[in-house]
Amino acid sequence: MKIGIIGGGAIGLLLAAYLSDEHKVTVYTRRSIQAQRLMREGLRFVKRGETKRISLQAMPFTNAHIHDDLVFVTVKQYDIAAIIHRQNQFDHVETVVFLQNGMGHVKWLSSFTKQNVIVGTVEHGALKHDDHTVEHTGIGKIVLASFHGTFGQAAMLAKENIHDFPFEIASDWESVLVKKLTVNAVINPLTALLRVKNGELLKVKPYYEMMTLLFSELKQVLPIEDEQAAWNHIVNVCEKTADNYSSMFMDISQRRKTEIDAILGYVLEKGKELGVALPISRFLFAAIKGMEEGGAKHG
Amino acid sequence: MKIGIIGGGAIGLLLAAYLSDEHKVTVYTRRSIQAQRLMREGLRFVKRGETKRISLQAMPFTNAHIHDDLVFVTVKQYDIAAIIHRQNQFDHVETVVFLQNGMGHVKWLSSFTKQNVIVGTVEHGALKHDDHTVEHTGIGKIVLASFHGTFGQAAMLAKENIHDFPFEIASDWESVLVKKLTVNAVINPLTALLRVKNGELLKVKPYYEMMTLLFSELKQVLPIEDEQAAWNHIVNVCEKTADNYSSMFMDISQRRKTEIDAILGYVLEKGKELGVALPISRFLFAAIKGMEEGGAKHG
Repeated sequence: MKIGIIGGGAIGLLLAAYLSDEHKVTVYTRRSIQAQRLMREGLRFVKRGETKRISLQAMPFTNAHIHDDLVFVTVKQYDIAAIIHRQNQFDHVETVVFLQNGMGHVKWLSSFTKQNVIVGTVEHGALKHDDHTVEHTGIGKIVLASFHGTFGQAAMLAKENIHDFPFEIASDWESVLVKKLTVNAVINPLTALLRVKNGELLKVKPYYEMMTLLFSELKQVLPIEDEQAAWNHIVNVCEKTADNYSSMFMDISQRRKTEIDAILGYVLEKGKELGVALPISRFLFAAIKGMEEGGAKHG
Repeated sequence: MKIGIIGGGAIGLLLAAYLSDEHKVTVYTRRSIQAQRLMREGLRFVKRGETKRISLQAMPFTNAHIHDDLVFVTVKQYDIAAIIHRQNQFDHVETVVFLQNGMGHVKWLSSFTKQNVIVGTVEHGALKHDDHTVEHTGIGKIVLASFHGTFGQAAMLAKENIHDFPFEIASDWESVLVKKLTVNAVINPLTALLRVKNGELLKVKPYYEMMTLLFSELKQVLPIEDEQAAWNHIVNVCEKTADNYSSMFMDISQRRKTEIDAILGYVLEKGKELGVALPISRFLFAAIKGMEEGGAKHG
């Protein structure tokens, strides 16, 4: 089938690498220079130390006429408003998959009335080395759940059993997103603040305590069904990614904007809605905001 | 008069430098090698780029027979138990001045029944370059208040008007210590956690918000009389020391033990006593504890 991928970041390029074998993939980038480079030089895909060159289509998203059957939107949550704004470009698309972190983008999704809308979470590790090079650093899975409509062509992907790149279908979109959000809301800001690898949160006892204190606030406002399972999942992700730096750690250390609004910002909004004070979340949110600002200012 | 100074850290050496002009000073060190060096090579005192050599007496504290009129105890709060334990060495001392941060040491002080006991706070900036070199990096003052007994010979110091090294007499020891504790409990852990200079807490808006969130917890458990004045004092110290790194920042970055127990640890104890939940203080306390532990382990 024809698959469109909006966003040429690590996740967008990783999807492009795995889906190009069986499908006709187009990557829609923000900058035309990236599209040109992908067209001219191809996508370089690094895995277990080996590099493979992959040919694909690429063009800037702005003004592109999208005629793909299935489109993955992989831009960061803070860039999604720009996509929503150009919704008419999706008129010929059957199914759109949103792969953002957090839940802040959900409020926009019902406006895609003509398409099947799917939300998903990515549990892969991926590192973008440059505009046309991506490395698969951790093998995980992508979980998809229907937000409205059917799965459309996305159902195919789960059946294809792509090696090292499985798609899983879940029934309840909210629990899929909340599960990921809970993990992100604990691991990302704490590792960014403390400047440690994910595994340190388990190894250093006071850091583990910080996790429990933060989690005890999150569970007051997020629709977590099974608290113990949610906590075990966080610990499990820390263990499996012990030697990795979280994306928020990387964003802070490279002075990029973080996804803190989509993650803890969303938690704070929920707290406001429900009238629950979340002092630690608020304190931690300010810390990350300050680190973004301080880092940028003194860069 | 004869003045003893227990502790050869930055504050101990700074006191020795300023008091040696008019008094017979002995520095009591923990390590005999430091005492030997001070005896042999003298104290090097750096101020505004100039270095002066000062002769003084020095010996290890352990087993020293102290016959000074006035003794300053300048060791960190976490080392004070060792001093209390050897209280008989103070039998011939008239007046003891305790210059520790926090309030954790106060509970020990009533056991000094034979002496005048004074507590004090140090608002100077001092940097110990090596075992016999200290630099006066910020001119402030020392505030003294009687804990029990009279001021004894300490009253003299306030009258001497030592240039750049004033002593001030206050009436209420608790408010003196609380004022300093409040400043330390806000500025020290935040700057250590965020790894910034004191002035950044004012410059970066979300960091300023973190200060206000933390202060709103402290004022629930510390006996602060005038909240606005206490807050203004914190802001004022940040301004005056904007370009400095706090002692806790320095301790963390040099992988030394911090004074977090004496500062936020004391605040948490008060919270427990009073039954007040202090989520941010607890979270921040764990962060600093973890940074101490993590830094040491992976050093």
